[in-house]
Amino acid sequence: MLLGIDPGTAVTGFGVVSVDPRRNMVLLQCGVIRTSPRAALAIRLKDIHEGVAALIDEFSPDTLSIESTFYGKNVRSALALGQARGAIILAAAQRGVEVAEYAPREIKKAVVGTGGATKEQVAYMVRRHLRLRTDPAPSDAADGVAAALCHAFTGRRPTLANPTVITP
Amino acid sequence: MLLGIDPGTAVTGFGVVSVDPRRNMVLLQCGVIRTSPRAALAIRLKDIHEGVAALIDEFSPDTLSIESTFYGKNVRSALALGQARGAIILAAAQRGVEVAEYAPREIKKAVVGTGGATKEQVAYMVRRHLRLRTDPAPSDAADGVAAALCHAFTGRRPTLANPTVITP
Repeated sequence: MLLGIDPGTAVTGFGVVSVDPRRNMVLLQCGVIRTSPRAALAIRLKDIHEGVAALIDEFSPDTLSIESTFYGKNVRSALALGQARGAIILAAAQRGVEVAEYAPREIKKAVVGTGGATKEQVAYMVRRHLRLRTDPAPSDAADGVAAALCHAFTGRRPTLANPTVITP
Repeated sequence: MLLGIDPGTAVTGFGVVSVDPRRNMVLLQCGVIRTSPRAALAIRLKDIHEGVAALIDEFSPDTLSIESTFYGKNVRSALALGQARGAIILAAAQRGVEVAEYAPREIKKAVVGTGGATKEQVAYMVRRHLRLRTDPAPSDAADGVAAALCHAFTGRRPTLANPTVITP
């Protein structure tokens, strides 16, 4: 069982995918954890943490596969995204679930075949791989499912890198 | 009671300061939460979260005052620092402790009188304000105490800003 996560402070997409020994894959659930833009950051992080914790408790995934995203590429948005990631990774660590991290390009390459795929292509191929009737929606949910598929396809051992060590 | 935090993935400094109604301040404890550079990120975040949670449970602070730092100013280190901040802020949110955030310059200005103060000046003034025999050590611990003092001096209401909203 895999839990794929596309992290964000406002919207965190997720997908739960079961993989049997013959590598048949079934989508069990996908969706988004939304937080209120009017809530304090602390409350938003708590909501994200609780949402992911509830998914782990319900589905007992072996691995949480998380996209290592750099939206915007500016320091402020990276700090914000890092906070959401911290809350998510913590939920896994507290429950003994291993964490695997994939760059957005790795996920696109694994799911679509090219690292430069569009969001629409990712959603379409997620649908094909899992034999869904429609594309997963919203697109954040599809990105969460794609993170799970990437781990299923590449079968990589968890390689969550240590971050740059920050010594004041 | 105030808990001041200088966050970091490798070393998180903290200081616990009691403030009585006449604004007399006493340092109850200071130190650092160190994580192993060899541990996986998930484990390091768990250790930081547990360390902060234990301090909150022991001292029941009214406010957690956290430095909003941008070391290095690059996206990678900001993401890493954000993850540590997420784990820390979450520990407060889960226990109903309000979170106040101060920029490094605000803390230096409140404690030393100038936003451009050196680490040594901060440690020295922390010592003077709290009538300690020696500077708090290591310097990360002094920075944690300084974050608590900043909140005590400025008495600002919590103003933890919402982060940049990241919408994929």
